Amino acid sequence: MLRASLAAVFAVFAIGAAHADPVSHFTLPNGLEAVVIEDHRAPVVVQMVWYRTGSADEVRGKSGIAHFLEHLMFKGTDTMAAGELSKTVSANGGSDNAFTSYDYTAYYQRIAADRLELVMKMEADRMRHLKLSPDDWTTERDVILEERAQRIDSDPGALFNEQMRAAQFLNSPYGTPIIGWRQEMEGLTRDDALAWYHRYYAPNNAVLVVAGDVTPDQVRALAEQYYGPLAPSQDIPPRARPQEPPQLAARHLDFSDDRVAQPYLTRTYLAPERNPGDQKQAAALTVLSAILGGNAQTSVLSRKLVFDKGDAIYVSTGYDGMSIDRTTFGISMMPAPDVSLPDAEKALDAALAEFLKEGIDPAQFERIRAQIRAGQIYEKDNTQGLAQRYGEALASGFSIADVQAWPDVLMSVSEADVMAAAQELLVPARAVTGYVERGKAGGEPALPEAPNAQEVAQ
Amino acid sequence: MLRASLAAVFAVFAIGAAHADPVSHFTLPNGLEAVVIEDHRAPVVVQMVWYRTGSADEVRGKSGIAHFLEHLMFKGTDTMAAGELSKTVSANGGSDNAFTSYDYTAYYQRIAADRLELVMKMEADRMRHLKLSPDDWTTERDVILEERAQRIDSDPGALFNEQMRAAQFLNSPYGTPIIGWRQEMEGLTRDDALAWYHRYYAPNNAVLVVAGDVTPDQVRALAEQYYGPLAPSQDIPPRARPQEPPQLAARHLDFSDDRVAQPYLTRTYLAPERNPGDQKQAAALTVLSAILGGNAQTSVLSRKLVFDKGDAIYVSTGYDGMSIDRTTFGISMMPAPDVSLPDAEKALDAALAEFLKEGIDPAQFERIRAQIRAGQIYEKDNTQGLAQRYGEALASGFSIADVQAWPDVLMSVSEADVMAAAQELLVPARAVTGYVERGKAGGEPALPEAPNAQEVAQ
Repeated sequence: MLRASLAAVFAVFAIGAAHADPVSHFTLPNGLEAVVIEDHRAPVVVQMVWYRTGSADEVRGKSGIAHFLEHLMFKGTDTMAAGELSKTVSANGGSDNAFTSYDYTAYYQRIAADRLELVMKMEADRMRHLKLSPDDWTTERDVILEERAQRIDSDPGALFNEQMRAAQFLNSPYGTPIIGWRQEMEGLTRDDALAWYHRYYAPNNAVLVVAGDVTPDQVRALAEQYYGPLAPSQDIPPRARPQEPPQLAARHLDFSDDRVAQPYLTRTYLAPERNPGDQKQAAALTVLSAILGGNAQTSVLSRKLVFDKGDAIYVSTGYDGMSIDRTTFGISMMPAPDVSLPDAEKALDAALAEFLKEGIDPAQFERIRAQIRAGQIYEKDNTQGLAQRYGEALASGFSIADVQAWPDVLMSVSEADVMAAAQELLVPARAVTGYVERGKAGGEPALPEAPNAQEVAQ
Repeated sequence: MLRASLAAVFAVFAIGAAHADPVSHFTLPNGLEAVVIEDHRAPVVVQMVWYRTGSADEVRGKSGIAHFLEHLMFKGTDTMAAGELSKTVSANGGSDNAFTSYDYTAYYQRIAADRLELVMKMEADRMRHLKLSPDDWTTERDVILEERAQRIDSDPGALFNEQMRAAQFLNSPYGTPIIGWRQEMEGLTRDDALAWYHRYYAPNNAVLVVAGDVTPDQVRALAEQYYGPLAPSQDIPPRARPQEPPQLAARHLDFSDDRVAQPYLTRTYLAPERNPGDQKQAAALTVLSAILGGNAQTSVLSRKLVFDKGDAIYVSTGYDGMSIDRTTFGISMMPAPDVSLPDAEKALDAALAEFLKEGIDPAQFERIRAQIRAGQIYEKDNTQGLAQRYGEALASGFSIADVQAWPDVLMSVSEADVMAAAQELLVPARAVTGYVERGKAGGEPALPEAPNAQEVAQ
C-alpha cells in the first residue's frame, strides 16, 4: 500500500507537468474568479459565466426557482431590452444558452473572437442589473411549466428518474428535481426570483471562463473593465446542504406507464463524491464504472449478462463524482425478451457478487487505463469541453489544481483501490432498484375495480 | 345519495345537541384561544398549552429543532430558575411534561385544582420570557441525542419506521423524523432554538386548554391576568408546507437487523387528511380502518388472513386523519411462522382485492357503528382525553365546531362512502411496503465479501 501511494504522488507531478492544460487563472478584487483557456486554431471564443448556485441550494417548497431565474436572466436590464442579449448574439453570428444543475447555473455564448467584448459587456450587465417588469414574468413561468410538461411529464423515463431520486435521497435536496415539482413551480413568483437573484448573483459567487482565440491579457483587461466595477455581495450563504442520514433499507420501485416501449431496470447506489484535495475514492469509482459497464462489448457486466448468459440485451453504468454532496452510482439493464425483470435483477446481483469475488482481470484493467489516458489526450483538443470542465469544477468548489490533478489521480488508481471502492459502494441498504414496465400508469387504481358503490350501499 | 346527505345533516344537529361536550371557548384580545372543559368529579385540573408549530414547520437541514426547543422550554425565565417549573409542580403534588409532533408542540401540568393559578403563571411566563444561558444548552442537546439513541437507534422498529416515512413522502416534511436526523441534531444551536422560539411562541399562535374542576369564569379571569399581558407576534409564518408531487411508483423496502425478533411487514398508503369543515372522507377512512383491521377477532383482514387461511398471526390497521397535510393509512401484518414475507404480502393483496370486490358485510358495519357510538360515549368521561382532542384539533387548524361535528360525521358514513374511500386509497403507486427481518443490519455490505484486497492487487 505504501509503495502504491508513493508511486501515485510521483505520478501527479510527472504527468501533471507534461500534460498541463493551456489554462491561466486570476481573481478580480471583487472576487470574480476567471479561467482563460487559449486555443488559437479558430477565430472563435466561448464565454461562460458559472454561478455557484443550483437547485440543491433551494429551500424546500420553492423547487424550480434556480431554473426559473435562469430563464428570467434573458429578460432585460437598465440598458438592454428583454431578449436583446440573445438577439444581439445571434445577429453577430453567435449562439448562446444557459443551463441549471443541482450545484451550479451557467450562461454561455459562442461567437467570433473579435466580439468577446460585446458579449462580456452584456453578461456583466445582467450579473447585477437584471430588471424584471411586474408584468411579463408569468409568461416565463408558463414557459418552464411547458418545459416540464415536454421534458418530464410526457417522458415516462424522466418521470421514473424523478421517483428514483426521491427514493434514493432521504434528506438531501438532490432528491428534488432540478426543474421543480409542478405544484411548487406553479407558485413561484417574481419576488422569489428576485430574492434568488440578489442572494446568489454576484461577482464573488461566479466563475468566468473564456476559451478560444484570446490571450489571458486580453481577457483580464476586458474582465477588469466590465466585471471589475460590479459590487460583491456580503450575504452569500455557505453551501451547507442537508446531509443524508444512514440509509438502512434496500428500496425497490415499481413504475408502470402505457408509453413504455421496452421494460428495463435501474439500480442506483448512494455514492461518495469527489472532494477538493481528496479525489481518490471518486477516481476509483470512475474506474469501477468503466470496468463494470463502460463498454458495451468488453465491460464486466456486458460480458457476464449479455454475452455469457444472455440475460440482458444491454447494460451500462454511470457515475459522475463532480458533486458537492453524496451522489449516485447507477446501473441500467435491459433484459432479454424472455427474461422477467425480477430474474434480470437476480442475474445482476449474481454478476456483481461474482465480480466482488473474482476481482479485476488485469488485461481489462490495462485496457481501461489505456482508454482513460487516450481520453485525456483527446480531451485537450476539445476546448469547449475544457471550458465546461473548469467551469463546473470551480463552481462546485474545486480548485484549478484539483482539475489538473484529476487525470493523474485517475491513473494512480490500483485494482485494489477499485475493489475496495466497489466493496464499500455495493451495499443493498443504500441502493434503490426500479422496474420500468408497460402498464397502467402509476397513480391509477391497479386493484380490481370495486362494484358500483350503489350495489353495496344499503 | 341525496337522502343520505340530508340524514347526515339532521344527525349532526340531533346528536350534536344531545351529546354536547361540557366545553366553552373564548379568545383573548392578544389572540390566545382558550378552551375550558368542566369536570367537577375530582378536585384536579389539567392545563395544556398547545403551540401551532411542530417538526413539519422546520426548514430542511434543521430537523429536530421543534423538539429541541421543547426541551429547552424547561430552562428558566427572568423570574424562574432552570428546572424550577417542574420542581414547583412536583413539590405541589402535580406532574408535568411536554410533547412534540409534526403539527404541534404541547406542554401540560396536572395538579390540584386550587393550584391552577400557580401553573398558569409559570406557563405564561415561559411563553414569552424564556432565557437560555449561553452555557447550558449543549447539555440539553446531549439529552436529545441520547433520547434519539434510546428511542430510535436502539429500536429496529423505530429505525424502520423512519426509513418507511422517508420513502413514503417524496417532498413533504412529514418524511423527516420529529426527533430529527442525528447529524442535523448534532448541529443545532442555541441561536436556532431562540429563532424558533421567537418565531412561533406567542399567544396568537397558542391554544390554552384547561380541563377539570374549574369554571369558565375562573379560567378566563386567570388567563386574562397571566396570558393577557403577553404581546402577540406579527410574524408568524403561514403553515404552507411543501406538498407531495404525484406518487407514481410503488415502493418496497427491505430492512434487516440482528435485533429483530419476529419478521413482519408494513404497508402504508398516502392518505387524505381531515380538513376543517370537510371531514367526510377522513371519517370514511377512519371507519375503513376499523372494518379492515380494527379488531383482532372480527375485522376483515383478521378474518381473511388469520382465521380463514392462517397466513398471518396478527394484522392491524392504523389511520389518524388529524393532520394538516396528507398523511398515511397503515397496515401491519405478522406472518405465520411458515409463511414468507413475499407470500404474506401476496395474501394481503389478495385479501384487499377480495374486500374491494365483496364490499362490506352489513352486520359487521352495524357492529362497527355501535362500537364507534359506544366509544364516543365513553370518551366523554375521559376529561384528559377531551383536553387532548380539543387541543390537538385547535392547534391543527380545526374549530370547536369541527371537533363537535366529528362524531356525527363518523356516524353519517355509509358503506358506499367507505368503499369509495377504499377504492381511492388502495393505489399501489402511492404505497410503500416494508419487510422487517432478522439479519445483517442495513448499511453493512450484504454481498459476499470480496477477497482481501491484497490478493487481487498486483
